[in-house]
Amino acid sequence: MPTLVLIRHGQSAWNLENRFTGWWDVNLTDQGIAEAKAAGELMAAKGLDFDQCFTSFQTRAIKTLNLALEAMERLWLPVEKDWRLNERHYGGLTGLDKAETAAKHGEDQVKIWRRSFDIPPPVLAPDGDYDLTADRRYAGIAIPDTESLKDTIARVLPYWEARIAPALKQGERVLISAHGNSLRALVKHLSNIPDDEITGLEIPTGQPIVYELDDALAATDRYYLSER
Amino acid sequence: MPTLVLIRHGQSAWNLENRFTGWWDVNLTDQGIAEAKAAGELMAAKGLDFDQCFTSFQTRAIKTLNLALEAMERLWLPVEKDWRLNERHYGGLTGLDKAETAAKHGEDQVKIWRRSFDIPPPVLAPDGDYDLTADRRYAGIAIPDTESLKDTIARVLPYWEARIAPALKQGERVLISAHGNSLRALVKHLSNIPDDEITGLEIPTGQPIVYELDDALAATDRYYLSER
Repeated sequence: MPTLVLIRHGQSAWNLENRFTGWWDVNLTDQGIAEAKAAGELMAAKGLDFDQCFTSFQTRAIKTLNLALEAMERLWLPVEKDWRLNERHYGGLTGLDKAETAAKHGEDQVKIWRRSFDIPPPVLAPDGDYDLTADRRYAGIAIPDTESLKDTIARVLPYWEARIAPALKQGERVLISAHGNSLRALVKHLSNIPDDEITGLEIPTGQPIVYELDDALAATDRYYLSER
Repeated sequence: MPTLVLIRHGQSAWNLENRFTGWWDVNLTDQGIAEAKAAGELMAAKGLDFDQCFTSFQTRAIKTLNLALEAMERLWLPVEKDWRLNERHYGGLTGLDKAETAAKHGEDQVKIWRRSFDIPPPVLAPDGDYDLTADRRYAGIAIPDTESLKDTIARVLPYWEARIAPALKQGERVLISAHGNSLRALVKHLSNIPDDEITGLEIPTGQPIVYELDDALAATDRYYLSER
């Protein structure tokens, strides 16, 4: 049976400050580091093991993966990094804390942006503090200026089909370290969750989510590893 | 011009205890961690940047790379890990400290094993404490039971030719994090050092060594980054 484990990065500095982060490259807090190590220790204690790992281009997810792998004595596993596993791009909300955003745009509007499936926030202004066009990690990539969850799904799933699903079909055990919304994209796909429900699905930081899949990669079970 | 930087992992627990390590997977000390971070900070301060990284299957080299990349804000760079960049396998000396080895085999014999080009130490006894045949990272690999430096070179150079040299020839800037003897193999090759001199070349931990190469990958300069 193919095994797939998803893990959202540990707490980041902006999770703690309650700011919209998106593609901005914020590091883990000490708590986030501890969460990542604990996730690796839990996976090792439960006897999970992997053949291939995937992560985003963002420090908080890569570092979470590295810390978990070190705790499992599996730093030597192959890791593929790709921007398509990045967090949803929050456009013009990037860097704002949630109270500032509510004061600026109104509580109801913020709720729409956070909870609607296909309405993106306002675009990120070019040349501002959070403009990534000069960041060489994204050279050659059409960096989004904002994304709805639907937009995020539209770039996560082709990567799933091209790189991750083939590894699983070859029998490889796969670990993915990514972000709240890139993981929502995968959970929606694998668990067949409707558009209006997926936006409300909370994915906790640093908690390994285990998928048991059949040979066609249909989910036969999904659970938090800490609960088994 | 292709750029190549070599870095030997930071101090490991067994460097500190003066024990033969070889393929045994020993972690960095706090000093080793600090060396790795300082190497990354130095490379960033000197304006070095990379497109592709290579490392061994051993925690101390992978972790050195990860710490250096994090200090450079380059954790997102692609990293290829391969056993052929592992340290020289010290056979039956694995785990012995250098005083124990001298007491057991005599000072002169130890010097021969450490300093000769093509005389390997005694083989590692099977089923002992340091037997790696059950370690799944080496599944499918003919794990050596001992190696001379010549043996180490014989598996490092084909990897160089197959994977590293092509990346450099495509214009990629390459960072390699590896071990005293796998790096001696590369330095011998690139700097054309005779058999009887290479065994005496000390490669310090955590010190980036810069190679400037011409388009045929012949070395035009080699220096410690800290000295420029």
